[in-house]
Amino acid sequence: MSYVVALDVGGTSMKGGLVTLSGEVTVFPGRPTGRERGADAAVATINSYVSELADAGTATFGQAPAGVGLAVPGIVSATVALYSANIGWRDVPVAAFVPDGLPACLGHDVRTGGLAESVFGAGREVSDFLFLPLGTGIAAAVVVGGEPYGGANGWGGEIGHTPVWPDGEKCACGQRGCLETYASAAALARRYAARTGDAATAKGIVERAASDGDAAAVLGDAVEALAISLASYTLLLDPSMIVIGGGLGEAGPALLDPLAERLAARLSFREPPPLRQSALGVRAGMMGAAILGWRAAGRTDWSPGLVGHGVGHGL
Amino acid sequence: MSYVVALDVGGTSMKGGLVTLSGEVTVFPGRPTGRERGADAAVATINSYVSELADAGTATFGQAPAGVGLAVPGIVSATVALYSANIGWRDVPVAAFVPDGLPACLGHDVRTGGLAESVFGAGREVSDFLFLPLGTGIAAAVVVGGEPYGGANGWGGEIGHTPVWPDGEKCACGQRGCLETYASAAALARRYAARTGDAATAKGIVERAASDGDAAAVLGDAVEALAISLASYTLLLDPSMIVIGGGLGEAGPALLDPLAERLAARLSFREPPPLRQSALGVRAGMMGAAILGWRAAGRTDWSPGLVGHGVGHGL
Repeated sequence: MSYVVALDVGGTSMKGGLVTLSGEVTVFPGRPTGRERGADAAVATINSYVSELADAGTATFGQAPAGVGLAVPGIVSATVALYSANIGWRDVPVAAFVPDGLPACLGHDVRTGGLAESVFGAGREVSDFLFLPLGTGIAAAVVVGGEPYGGANGWGGEIGHTPVWPDGEKCACGQRGCLETYASAAALARRYAARTGDAATAKGIVERAASDGDAAAVLGDAVEALAISLASYTLLLDPSMIVIGGGLGEAGPALLDPLAERLAARLSFREPPPLRQSALGVRAGMMGAAILGWRAAGRTDWSPGLVGHGVGHGL
Repeated sequence: MSYVVALDVGGTSMKGGLVTLSGEVTVFPGRPTGRERGADAAVATINSYVSELADAGTATFGQAPAGVGLAVPGIVSATVALYSANIGWRDVPVAAFVPDGLPACLGHDVRTGGLAESVFGAGREVSDFLFLPLGTGIAAAVVVGGEPYGGANGWGGEIGHTPVWPDGEKCACGQRGCLETYASAAALARRYAARTGDAATAKGIVERAASDGDAAAVLGDAVEALAISLASYTLLLDPSMIVIGGGLGEAGPALLDPLAERLAARLSFREPPPLRQSALGVRAGMMGAAILGWRAAGRTDWSPGLVGHGVGHGL
């Protein structure tokens, strides 16, 4: 059975899996990137992780993987990891990440997640949408014609630093009032702690908002910031839907219902697009990497409808 | 010599011209759309204007026009004018706008201007940019891969109603703090009059800003609003450049220089894209309509590089 190796590489850790032609997924334990030992070490660590996954696949399926897909942070083309502030690399060719001879393809981490949502996730029935994972930080995939769009130089999708309240709270980026300052998981925890002196996770804050005025206020600011930002996006790009993902997106209706109400209130002369929860959750990046792996292999006969089913755990 | 009829239809008036295969343009006197007599009357007025231009072209060039292109307001596909709040029509097929048998193509007014800037204007050397004409109102063309992008349903580009200061001044659309409320030509005049009691045009306000504190304050707010909005656009869509057009865009460096400075100040971790003045000015819509006319005719052998030269005046 043909399969690909799929990797979702974050700044500090990465996770990988094998995905077969018929859509069966075997997920492997994650691993640190080792970036604290430098960019070269991180590249070597990734290469060695891919090798192990390829070996495991060869043992299971009796053949080498057809291809390798890697979702990586920073500025990326299909063939070169151009720059990552997070890991510190510059201009690393895709071949450096994989054992000799394996066809491989790189993708931007968030846009690769958006690709997966587009091909077999929440956006599979539309071609133009926003994929907005809400995590420690916030960046988005602008999906146009079924494909994530990175702009002229791959710097697109930085919705987390668009100004929501231009004279608002200071953001780590140096500006004021960025979306991320109010609506990331880290922002919820930080702003709640600043009000109450108590530590709480973003998930905990959403859960207690019904009975805790401070949690409600912090969540309310996050929802309003998201509504303002998504109103701008909707007016500019008229998406068919907005897909909310990431850890905070898993709050589901507790976040999406008030957000839908506030988004509608921020729009005058048009209906808001529907809000949908990510279908793939935190697995979106790896699923998108599998698509890149099939593309690298030149295969188009894989089964997107099945991917995500039959999930097992390897190693 | 082959030629097309090109029309730029606004809410209250329209202007038309003939454009030859080698790029010579003959501009005809504008005409009211007659929308106050109803949508049907406006359609009939446009049809009759196209007929007159086609007759004039036949007399001059000895043949009927190869095609007709029409830039119209509202929601538009290539074959149907779906809706215009301004004129009041709904679902008017393109054939209704032109004499029998002439191939014709419709385009959205602002996006058709963006198409012209993309094909032979300020954006001709890049494929991804924003075309932002600043007129009585503000709407934009989001150019992706060389073509204006209208979103899922053609409602894209409404940058004029994106919230800049979400708790700011009331906009005619019902929201608060929209870009248009601060930065349209109408907004400059209105806000200057509110401060001073004096009537002044947007152009006059820009000109006197160096010596008039009220004009400087009004212009400063407009520039800041544009900078905030363009910072968001830049972070989301990473354009190669931003092309400023419309009547107010003709202020040139008096507007673009402070705007470039404020845009850079609103961005932390990336360079701003260059700002360029529209190459086609208020002629952009008609030039784009000519491109649509050639497309309707199935011709690809026209000379974009020459269009804009050899401008004459007809009738």
